[in-house]
Amino acid sequence: MMRPSMRKSNQMRHVSLETCVNKWAEGSCLIKMGGTQVLCTASIDMNQPVWKRIQNKTGGWVTAEYSMLPRANGTRKSRDSISKDNRSAEISRLIGRALRSVVDMDALGRHTITIDCDVIQADGGTRCASITGGFVALKMAVQWLIDNGRITRNPIREHVAAISAGLFNGELVLDLDYDEDCNAEMDANFVVSEHGQFIEVQSTGEQHPFTKDQLCTLMDMAANAARELIELQKQVL
Amino acid sequence: MMRPSMRKSNQMRHVSLETCVNKWAEGSCLIKMGGTQVLCTASIDMNQPVWKRIQNKTGGWVTAEYSMLPRANGTRKSRDSISKDNRSAEISRLIGRALRSVVDMDALGRHTITIDCDVIQADGGTRCASITGGFVALKMAVQWLIDNGRITRNPIREHVAAISAGLFNGELVLDLDYDEDCNAEMDANFVVSEHGQFIEVQSTGEQHPFTKDQLCTLMDMAANAARELIELQKQVL
Amino acid sequence: MMRPSMRKSNQMRHVSLETCVNKWAEGSCLIKMGGTQVLCTASIDMNQPVWKRIQNKTGGWVTAEYSMLPRANGTRKSRDSISKDNRSAEISRLIGRALRSVVDMDALGRHTITIDCDVIQADGGTRCASITGGFVALKMAVQWLIDNGRITRNPIREHVAAISAGLFNGELVLDLDYDEDCNAEMDANFVVSEHGQFIEVQSTGEQHPFTKDQLCTLMDMAANAARELIELQKQVL
Amino acid sequence: MMRPSMRKSNQMRHVSLETCVNKWAEGSCLIKMGGTQVLCTASIDMNQPVWKRIQNKTGGWVTAEYSMLPRANGTRKSRDSISKDNRSAEISRLIGRALRSVVDMDALGRHTITIDCDVIQADGGTRCASITGGFVALKMAVQWLIDNGRITRNPIREHVAAISAGLFNGELVLDLDYDEDCNAEMDANFVVSEHGQFIEVQSTGEQHPFTKDQLCTLMDMAANAARELIELQKQVL
Amino acid sequence: MMRPSMRKSNQMRHVSLETCVNKWAEGSCLIKMGGTQVLCTASIDMNQPVWKRIQNKTGGWVTAEYSMLPRANGTRKSRDSISKDNRSAEISRLIGRALRSVVDMDALGRHTITIDCDVIQADGGTRCASITGGFVALKMAVQWLIDNGRITRNPIREHVAAISAGLFNGELVLDLDYDEDCNAEMDANFVVSEHGQFIEVQSTGEQHPFTKDQLCTLMDMAANAARELIELQKQVL
Amino acid sequence: MMRPSMRKSNQMRHVSLETCVNKWAEGSCLIKMGGTQVLCTASIDMNQPVWKRIQNKTGGWVTAEYSMLPRANGTRKSRDSISKDNRSAEISRLIGRALRSVVDMDALGRHTITIDCDVIQADGGTRCASITGGFVALKMAVQWLIDNGRITRNPIREHVAAISAGLFNGELVLDLDYDEDCNAEMDANFVVSEHGQFIEVQSTGEQHPFTKDQLCTLMDMAANAARELIELQKQVL
Repeated sequence: MMRPSMRKSNQMRHVSLETCVNKWAEGSCLIKMGGTQVLCTASIDMNQPVWKRIQNKTGGWVTAEYSMLPRANGTRKSRDSISKDNRSAEISRLIGRALRSVVDMDALGRHTITIDCDVIQADGGTRCASITGGFVALKMAVQWLIDNGRITRNPIREHVAAISAGLFNGELVLDLDYDEDCNAEMDANFVVSEHGQFIEVQSTGEQHPFTKDQLCTLMDMAANAARELIELQKQVL
Repeated sequence: MMRPSMRKSNQMRHVSLETCVNKWAEGSCLIKMGGTQVLCTASIDMNQPVWKRIQNKTGGWVTAEYSMLPRANGTRKSRDSISKDNRSAEISRLIGRALRSVVDMDALGRHTITIDCDVIQADGGTRCASITGGFVALKMAVQWLIDNGRITRNPIREHVAAISAGLFNGELVLDLDYDEDCNAEMDANFVVSEHGQFIEVQSTGEQHPFTKDQLCTLMDMAANAARELIELQKQVL
Repeated sequence: MMRPSMRKSNQMRHVSLETCVNKWAEGSCLIKMGGTQVLCTASIDMNQPVWKRIQNKTGGWVTAEYSMLPRANGTRKSRDSISKDNRSAEISRLIGRALRSVVDMDALGRHTITIDCDVIQADGGTRCASITGGFVALKMAVQWLIDNGRITRNPIREHVAAISAGLFNGELVLDLDYDEDCNAEMDANFVVSEHGQFIEVQSTGEQHPFTKDQLCTLMDMAANAARELIELQKQVL
Repeated sequence: MMRPSMRKSNQMRHVSLETCVNKWAEGSCLIKMGGTQVLCTASIDMNQPVWKRIQNKTGGWVTAEYSMLPRANGTRKSRDSISKDNRSAEISRLIGRALRSVVDMDALGRHTITIDCDVIQADGGTRCASITGGFVALKMAVQWLIDNGRITRNPIREHVAAISAGLFNGELVLDLDYDEDCNAEMDANFVVSEHGQFIEVQSTGEQHPFTKDQLCTLMDMAANAARELIELQKQVL
Repeated sequence: MMRPSMRKSNQMRHVSLETCVNKWAEGSCLIKMGGTQVLCTASIDMNQPVWKRIQNKTGGWVTAEYSMLPRANGTRKSRDSISKDNRSAEISRLIGRALRSVVDMDALGRHTITIDCDVIQADGGTRCASITGGFVALKMAVQWLIDNGRITRNPIREHVAAISAGLFNGELVLDLDYDEDCNAEMDANFVVSEHGQFIEVQSTGEQHPFTKDQLCTLMDMAANAARELIELQKQVL
Repeated sequence: MMRPSMRKSNQMRHVSLETCVNKWAEGSCLIKMGGTQVLCTASIDMNQPVWKRIQNKTGGWVTAEYSMLPRANGTRKSRDSISKDNRSAEISRLIGRALRSVVDMDALGRHTITIDCDVIQADGGTRCASITGGFVALKMAVQWLIDNGRITRNPIREHVAAISAGLFNGELVLDLDYDEDCNAEMDANFVVSEHGQFIEVQSTGEQHPFTKDQLCTLMDMAANAARELIELQKQVL
């Protein structure tokens, strides 16, 4: 049984990470995974978020916003529907949780870093690409804080990356593209830390329930893929 | 190591399901899991949803809406913030996916069933309670369609229930209440079918990454709990 | 001429008031008047409302919010239309005015009490039930302030209750249910104080103008009914 | 005891009605009651309202929209707060009910008449002035329909006018201006038909409860004033 | 070649400016240019705008808001569409820029003046009428500040007025009314200072490109017309 | 007197146009003018816009939407403020008018082409870059319609390009970058057709009024620059 993309079941698409793609942002990375392209920028605000100030909390914060350009997909979406899109808000929350999980908020000081993930072209796996590319932008912004004497200790504990996987035509496969994703029986997203532990597992079988064993196999595949992605992150940073 | 609720690690809170709690709705169920209370109603619209009609699709649809009353929690939330709450939208999508996964949309005919899950009192696990109670309301509404001669074949393939679990004080525990949830190192939600397969797994370790083995153990605990919940559903239907 | 509800013209429906129905709220009351059910909670904010602070005013404030659950009626309402509903806003203002009329704002201290009236099931007279039940929740919250040493003097001057009435099939009748309300020639709502005076009279004859004498007769009927409702309030407090 | 306006207790302010003040509208009237100025226009839509078409109802509809210009008052209001103003929505509903009460919707044919009441300058009693002036615009629009052969029978059954009254410094007084309204113990609005019956009575004693006798006296004063206002309407039409 | 309005190519419509048309506003002017009527009020806020305070800037600010009444045109516009109208926002920005260009913000002190331009009746050239009439209201408000001892030096450097022009039936004409505007091949708006210089030129040839010479001729015509308008402003101030 | 960019007064920045940058869109162009980068995509809808269908009009339509990514500027903008930004709406209208001015709507057939102009990086002149780049995307989409047999006749009458200019330090200069724009005494935007005529002239002297001669000189400079830009467009198409 062949995948439409002709890839082997545990084969990711070609991945590239380009840094310094925005002259204004304190960190930026354009990630391409096959046809998927996400522009990630990190913006530093020299303040805590309002809710931390009100609650008299210490330390900083990392947050993320994910959005599609209107023609990132085969069919144009109106900007109005994009700005009210619950799916985007859900993905933004996922990216934020993933990136915060590797940051020591006290070491970050009273700064807020916002990671914007704007999908230039979508072809499956955009939320995972956003996490992998967003981490690169985040790390550059943290380096900016260190270089500018705003903080003294590196608040990033370890790298983080994410990868999708699923059940397609009865086979467990890695990194689904758009065509595969549309026809998958079950799909999952894995956020994995540099030490090979899991930060988030989201697995949905709306079309088809799945077994514990299937999910466990996918977790192994995802851990291997994440290791490769983190290797790439280290090369460009 | 004791849980604040004094329960054993694999012990659910007391669960009750009361049906026919709304004189207008085609199906209704008030579910209580400890201090958590969710009022679930099923409303039948004798039409397909608009998007199905536009796309010329066959069959019906099941959708869900989850919301909190302003004082469901310790601190009052403004109605304005409730109506724009992304977390509620995310949970609504989860409940809808969970319920749709056990329904044959063609057998449902050109009807739309909306499951409203209004949290009267929140004490942890509200999204799981909404799925378990919402299924009861859904099944009553489907029975209404059969009793009124609108459909001939039962579109529900099997029962579905949901349960939370997590890592609390280093121990894997079932059905976290609010106090436990606030201090959990990792928490997860499991939607399980009558045949013991998984429809959705969501596991987050923002505070603490987790291992494959931990998630697999929780999946076993959740499968057992779901069996009990489905037994209760059958008793009241 | 018989009423659809078989009640005598000056007969109210069965009324019950249940307190302490919410574990978080400082006051709560579930009121049932026939098929009408309204959950009333009182939430204390340990501050003046923002507008009082800006204007440097003394004392506290009482405000109310009235809303329907989507399936409180025979036909489901979308949450979107509920949150923008002008009728609900108008009723919220009425409930707030009614409850404030019996409270000494200076004796209340710099606290804001919000009364949420969520209609679980609607069958006519929901705004009046909200006032009658909301007063119970309010009085409990005031007692909470006294018990917790936040205020020393009881700011509540007297009880308040409300009742609907109207012209149905040429007859002046009390406490219209949904079926009667739909076909009434004229309908009115009366907010009455413990001393038998009127705090608000709203009378509308869109279908049929009415005379001074008719309104005066209804005012007498309402005053009697309010006396009974206030008696019930005292029993549960 | 003198009123700030030096008027006798049952004395209205000077009232003027100017018609044909808008070259586009099918009916228009600028009403001035003392310092209060409201521009009323009637716009005909050659269709039923959407909700009537969906429900397959016969006849036409009359609706009203009340709004303040930003500087109609002593303090400027932002347009944003105006467009979300619940008080304006409540008054719009009142004006619509009042005008509909004298129109035979079937005789109006499948037309929708919208009465816009824009308060140019506010000095108390704007909602009552809107009803009195809005009726003039409405009647002109109805005449336009007759003159253009769109309808054959006059759908207006009788005139309607409105007037405010209240309790000021212990005295029952008519037609409160802004200064009096701010300090009134109780205030009321009366919509009265040409035959001297009541279409709407709204009476509020937030500062001070009131008695049945007080309201009955005000109803007599309002009926007399309405007779004068209707006389003026007839003069300009 | 005749204009529909029978005017000569460089002839404006009859213009009138009436001041003190609002008892509350610090400045007000009703401008009529043929069938176009705009009510301009100036409201003083005794504070800088928020954005100036945040940025620690000196001096005051002048801003403008332009809006249509629903029936200012041949067809009624819904208030909802008015409040979201991008064209109105664009015109508001134009009016604000035009008025600010003649004000010394430091001499204005820490005050914000808002010029509301509400179009009572539209018949072409409403944005230009708003600038010409708005300046009159602005100057009155500035005089109010001087008369009340809030500022000592007149912050207004010179008068400003605006006029439309365009290409109609191949002829360059001044001050287009609605009928001419609809059929113009090109139209332009000119904001001109008392010294005959230009503050804003907006020229659009969506139907028909235009030449440099055409625009230059229109600029001469506009400068002449502005001189007349400024003469009228001086007469009423 | 030197420009900060060291350019001569009539020297544009380096311009590049890259086509086919989006795999889904029917036309796409990434334009770079110095530090300004705008991604332009053309999306074809196989229908007339709704308003044309309702009004029974013939032919197609071209519309444009301009937006900034949150970190296109030195300071991050919130997505919320972006989606409500009046300046963006004003620019979108300008781009749409400019592109429509060279298209024969009847020859376009019943299609709607939407040009999305998303500013990836802003450094002055983004609206002009959007028009110049948007035209390239538009022309590619028109070619797509021809190649796919949807239309037979080329609806594009001529090329169109746009360029900014202004008065900086007393000197008339072309193509202002961000630093120059911030300090310009007057700035202008010119939309110029292939035949050297003007489609739109917008010139603002909020800081400083300007003379007819100054604007006329800028129009000559703009016409020359547009000729170069149109030459570049032809090279990439």
